[in-house]
Amino acid sequence: MSKFKRAQRIAIISRMLVENPSSVFTLSSFSKKFGAAKSTLSEDVALIADAFEKEGIGRVITKQGVLGGVYYCPHFSVDRAYEEVNNVSRMLNDPRRILPGGFLYWSDILSTPNIVNTLASIIAMEYLNSEADFVLTMETKGIPFAFAVAHLLGVPLLVARRTSKVYEGSSVSINYFSGKGSLEAMSLPKRAAKAGEKALIIDDFISDGGTALGMCTLMKEFNVHIAGMAFMLSEEPRKARHVSGDISLMTLSRSSEAPPYVQPAQWLKERRSKE
Amino acid sequence: MSKFKRAQRIAIISRMLVENPSSVFTLSSFSKKFGAAKSTLSEDVALIADAFEKEGIGRVITKQGVLGGVYYCPHFSVDRAYEEVNNVSRMLNDPRRILPGGFLYWSDILSTPNIVNTLASIIAMEYLNSEADFVLTMETKGIPFAFAVAHLLGVPLLVARRTSKVYEGSSVSINYFSGKGSLEAMSLPKRAAKAGEKALIIDDFISDGGTALGMCTLMKEFNVHIAGMAFMLSEEPRKARHVSGDISLMTLSRSSEAPPYVQPAQWLKERRSKE
Repeated sequence: MSKFKRAQRIAIISRMLVENPSSVFTLSSFSKKFGAAKSTLSEDVALIADAFEKEGIGRVITKQGVLGGVYYCPHFSVDRAYEEVNNVSRMLNDPRRILPGGFLYWSDILSTPNIVNTLASIIAMEYLNSEADFVLTMETKGIPFAFAVAHLLGVPLLVARRTSKVYEGSSVSINYFSGKGSLEAMSLPKRAAKAGEKALIIDDFISDGGTALGMCTLMKEFNVHIAGMAFMLSEEPRKARHVSGDISLMTLSRSSEAPPYVQPAQWLKERRSKE
Repeated sequence: MSKFKRAQRIAIISRMLVENPSSVFTLSSFSKKFGAAKSTLSEDVALIADAFEKEGIGRVITKQGVLGGVYYCPHFSVDRAYEEVNNVSRMLNDPRRILPGGFLYWSDILSTPNIVNTLASIIAMEYLNSEADFVLTMETKGIPFAFAVAHLLGVPLLVARRTSKVYEGSSVSINYFSGKGSLEAMSLPKRAAKAGEKALIIDDFISDGGTALGMCTLMKEFNVHIAGMAFMLSEEPRKARHVSGDISLMTLSRSSEAPPYVQPAQWLKERRSKE
């Protein structure tokens, strides 16, 4: 007989799934843990999946086959995703954020867990089927966001650094032209990635794409494929951007006449109007 | 009548609580959401709290009073905490991690979400009552760990940087002696912290405490108090460490005769043997 009541099992299973997104749990492991029949646990999981579905945030997916089991993955309805991104855009348009030179202060947004995790869920949703083996970012500002996306996809995060460190062992370095037109370096420990893997590039901001191209070049050195590139904020108009295939959640317009203006990206708006 | 069955409410409430640790949810907000009586929801919450308690990971706490409600906070049994830290120690003692010069490769550990989140839970548990207003770390390696602790405590993360950036506005900079004996700088945007707040300092590694002292000095400039200091790994013996009151999860012993050796910190061992 099970030592847990259904309601208790549901509380515990819900927590396990949500705490470990993209990790597959087998019904057998639940059965062992709770001392209940697999058929009973299958009903528990169906109940949870149904509740999450009704609520419209996050999905519980059952995977068939030998490697089968259940796992949780982030999911937002189109409207909810738009609304969340729009909220952050509005925060960024607060005139008190404008710094001398027309720069926008947003370091606080980039490291506030609730905001970062919500935006990471919307990005992770887009790359659930990308089969990325890891997330790659360039230090420093994008690290919390990239870490949150990696967590949701159940993969490790790799952080490229400006200089190689003694405690990282032998490393691969490349040079790239940064947005400011200066030649910079980026390096990653040799043992961090394996040939044939797939990288998802995540960062906070993309302007002309110099750093993003640098990350692509670095991945080429490792014979690693690019599963996608996603950013929180993208500068518009996309003049001669060095990379393509990138998505971002918000766009930033800057001109000499008007203050910087942030809004949800076009693809989010379009998707919303289609539904 | 409620549009959700008890099992469904429990799945959804469990998820909300676990996804937003340290965030207080009122019964009224649940009541509005689910269209159920507060007494019913109070029973739901008690059921969840009981299940989590039985399982021994994470607690659901009910806060009385005007600002009352329920919230989730991380909790590990002493044995479980020790076991998790011991597992990571064992991973770090893998001889393949030893680099020329006796350094230890552990960049991968520092950014693997499951490991980072587990260790962060153990640290967050120690500072649940610290009333920290934010977590502070110094770029780069400790950022994922510090972000995870900040998430669990429901506070923002502040990242001190080596140089001040135009997009961070006016900033406060200090100089400090790093472990290598060189004079380095650390800076934080002026608007990042307010006088009278409390900072919890989190980083990956502490050796002689030069960087930690730097962070304390920086906080003094902001008139911010230190709620505590915690690290993943600490170098032993603690010769003349520049700070005190710090805790760490693991210790690293290094000598010219033997390879580096990592083990769970003494306080974790002692606490375990007391139970």
